[in-house]
Amino acid sequence: MIGKLNHVAIAVPDLQAASAQYRDTLGAQVGAPQDLPEHGVTVVFVTLPNTKIELLHPLGADSPIVGFLEKNPAGGIHHLCYEVADIGAARDRLTAAGARVLGDGEPKIGAHGNPVLFLHPKDFTGTLVELEEVGKAAEPEAAS
Amino acid sequence: MIGKLNHVAIAVPDLQAASAQYRDTLGAQVGAPQDLPEHGVTVVFVTLPNTKIELLHPLGADSPIVGFLEKNPAGGIHHLCYEVADIGAARDRLTAAGARVLGDGEPKIGAHGNPVLFLHPKDFTGTLVELEEVGKAAEPEAAS
Repeated sequence: MIGKLNHVAIAVPDLQAASAQYRDTLGAQVGAPQDLPEHGVTVVFVTLPNTKIELLHPLGADSPIVGFLEKNPAGGIHHLCYEVADIGAARDRLTAAGARVLGDGEPKIGAHGNPVLFLHPKDFTGTLVELEEVGKAAEPEAAS
Repeated sequence: MIGKLNHVAIAVPDLQAASAQYRDTLGAQVGAPQDLPEHGVTVVFVTLPNTKIELLHPLGADSPIVGFLEKNPAGGIHHLCYEVADIGAARDRLTAAGARVLGDGEPKIGAHGNPVLFLHPKDFTGTLVELEEVGKAAEPEAAS
């Protein structure tokens, strides 16, 4: 069911410092900060040859990552995002298997304009998992 | 400098349960457990179309991930591994930039038989970063 790893999201206390580390120290391709007020984050994309790192910083007092940074002041890996071809089918399969979808269980439009949902970390080895629908091309076996 | 994301390593308290979640619930391609006594871990590889997830479980009392699982009993993301073409050059660039290499600073042979080193999480936004030398093909710009 899951396809590519779309991105690894890392919450950071200082977006400028983290961007400089990835650009200057690690020599990666680092984009400009983008405010996503509807998601309560400012993001910087680090583009690797096979996937992306998303550096996340809180935007606004209601940011969903404020609590995470309070617990992890130096920053830390916040979630993994896997691509799926059909998020409704994914949700049905997951809930049938007993996995808990966060929120009201319905997909929302995520930071890339695609439907996303988040799974309860306790159901996935302590890892917050985001699923993002990217269309049928996400699953090689579905394209054949 | 860094190339592909080689893998995301997730420490898990129950390797069989985590393997079943990734295989049956998330529908991913999951390998058989491999004991790596020289690294103090048993690993299961989850192969995604563009990268790998490494599920890690302690092997032996001196396992380097025992402490992590004591702090994170449900499991959690342990480290990210980026590929580099030349680990000696990477180490020199990093230490010149003030980043701390764990241990004695010399690359070791990692779980895939390639030279690896680990960087101090405090220098990289709370993320434990592994660098793995995979040869010149790791950096597209170096191959041209």
